[in-house]
Amino acid sequence: MLASPFQRIAIIGLGLMGGSLALALRARGFSGTLLGGGGASADLQGARAAVVNGVPVFDRVEQDPASLPLAQADLLVLAVPPLALPQLLQLAAQATGSDTVVTDLASVKAEHVPYGESLLGHRFLSSHPLIGAEQKGFAAARAELYRNYRCVLCPGAQPNTDVLARLRQFWQTLGAEVLEMSAEAHDRALAATSHLPHLLAFAYLEMLGDVEEDLSLLAGSGLRDFSRIAASDPQLWADILEQNRSAVRADLQRLQEQLARLDAQLAAGDRAALAASLARGQRARSQFQFPSG
Amino acid sequence: MLASPFQRIAIIGLGLMGGSLALALRARGFSGTLLGGGGASADLQGARAAVVNGVPVFDRVEQDPASLPLAQADLLVLAVPPLALPQLLQLAAQATGSDTVVTDLASVKAEHVPYGESLLGHRFLSSHPLIGAEQKGFAAARAELYRNYRCVLCPGAQPNTDVLARLRQFWQTLGAEVLEMSAEAHDRALAATSHLPHLLAFAYLEMLGDVEEDLSLLAGSGLRDFSRIAASDPQLWADILEQNRSAVRADLQRLQEQLARLDAQLAAGDRAALAASLARGQRARSQFQFPSG
Repeated sequence: MLASPFQRIAIIGLGLMGGSLALALRARGFSGTLLGGGGASADLQGARAAVVNGVPVFDRVEQDPASLPLAQADLLVLAVPPLALPQLLQLAAQATGSDTVVTDLASVKAEHVPYGESLLGHRFLSSHPLIGAEQKGFAAARAELYRNYRCVLCPGAQPNTDVLARLRQFWQTLGAEVLEMSAEAHDRALAATSHLPHLLAFAYLEMLGDVEEDLSLLAGSGLRDFSRIAASDPQLWADILEQNRSAVRADLQRLQEQLARLDAQLAAGDRAALAASLARGQRARSQFQFPSG
Repeated sequence: MLASPFQRIAIIGLGLMGGSLALALRARGFSGTLLGGGGASADLQGARAAVVNGVPVFDRVEQDPASLPLAQADLLVLAVPPLALPQLLQLAAQATGSDTVVTDLASVKAEHVPYGESLLGHRFLSSHPLIGAEQKGFAAARAELYRNYRCVLCPGAQPNTDVLARLRQFWQTLGAEVLEMSAEAHDRALAATSHLPHLLAFAYLEMLGDVEEDLSLLAGSGLRDFSRIAASDPQLWADILEQNRSAVRADLQRLQEQLARLDAQLAAGDRAALAASLARGQRARSQFQFPSG
């Protein structure tokens, strides 16, 4: 039985992230109340039918999140794309109780975190579970997504220590290593570690254009892994890149300069400089502490 | 027992590719003679000690490839980096018998294939097993590398059909799907599917510079997979990029233009155009036929 600091949890957004969260809660033995709302009709259908260990995952699923008894929830999780957040933060401000903790799972923070805090005060505390998956929808949801992952919390300057402690514990009971940083620091860091790599993988593939049979067969496991993130939802990623465009463009500028340097080394036949560049890249990779598994 | 069309095989270069080839041959029941030569002393030691199913993998291992009885080999595999090929092709021309088929496993073809053909005639036929692995050395060699892979053969304009058939069969008995294309077509295609992605991954990581603890912990499985190819040997990849620089630079130029277009879309806040670009990238990825597993 999961020692969750929250016993009545509402999840709005029943796609991959929200759906997997619900499955992970039940798979780890969460025995409290689980409410679900919002999402495409296939997602709603999937959520209503979902069963873990013979027990329905959700106690109640509503197409319209406003129909859920949000005032009784002690945790509201907004598992929706960044563009949908402002409206749902307004709903949260109107419909949740004065003790409901509200969080979101979005990949970009600086645009909506101040807004959430202005509406909800210390009850709002933004989360970002660093979970990689290129699929979407409840059909692709699985409890295992919340395993061996890290979760960033973005508290404001003077967070409520009780809310922070409970949300931290919530993610930890779901197997996360929890980190804390400001929304701005989060967005700058994620531009470098996630948003720019996605942009690069998408750009590379668009450059290839239509992939002819011959080329298609020449792809090995290296390309498969390099390009996996570009199988992600283009609409979602357009939103993420737009919302974080200042940090993403700054990193992109630096990358373009780096590519120009490598091109000059190739043009000059300067093999020693080229090898030294690649070696610096290889060393940077060895400094990452990737999640296992 | 492997129905290999070659029964006396010499492998020069006992690193990851050559070592794994030897292990795969024995793991699949190859019962002929296996000679090994060349490589760092750790590789030689590893090759001498290697045992599969209780039987030594190599019948003989020599530090100096010229000491091997190459005249008796019916297949000579040059499993060395591209820069080492010219010298070993010369050795092959001097030391192999008039029936010895000679192949190499290099990732770039156009520079050395004409040279090999000029020295060895139709006995030389270049191979490229599309095997992804960022490790190096015999210590990292494993039979499983030669599983679910494709192998490109680069025959000249008028190949010897017997040599082509036997080499094709050789790779097929080791589990490959075999493709054929000219050395020039191979290099253009591999620039797009392998060399440019490696350059991008290395460039991105060099751009990050020294990775601080905070950033390091923010990397998830997406970045881990995207950047795996940049854990490869920088010296080997400097050689590959140099040898194929004309095709690589042409693709790099196109990618830089693509990045500039995406940057302009971000600057203009043109979300629709950005989403359409990403969607074209996503579609291109779906057109690849990646190897399973």
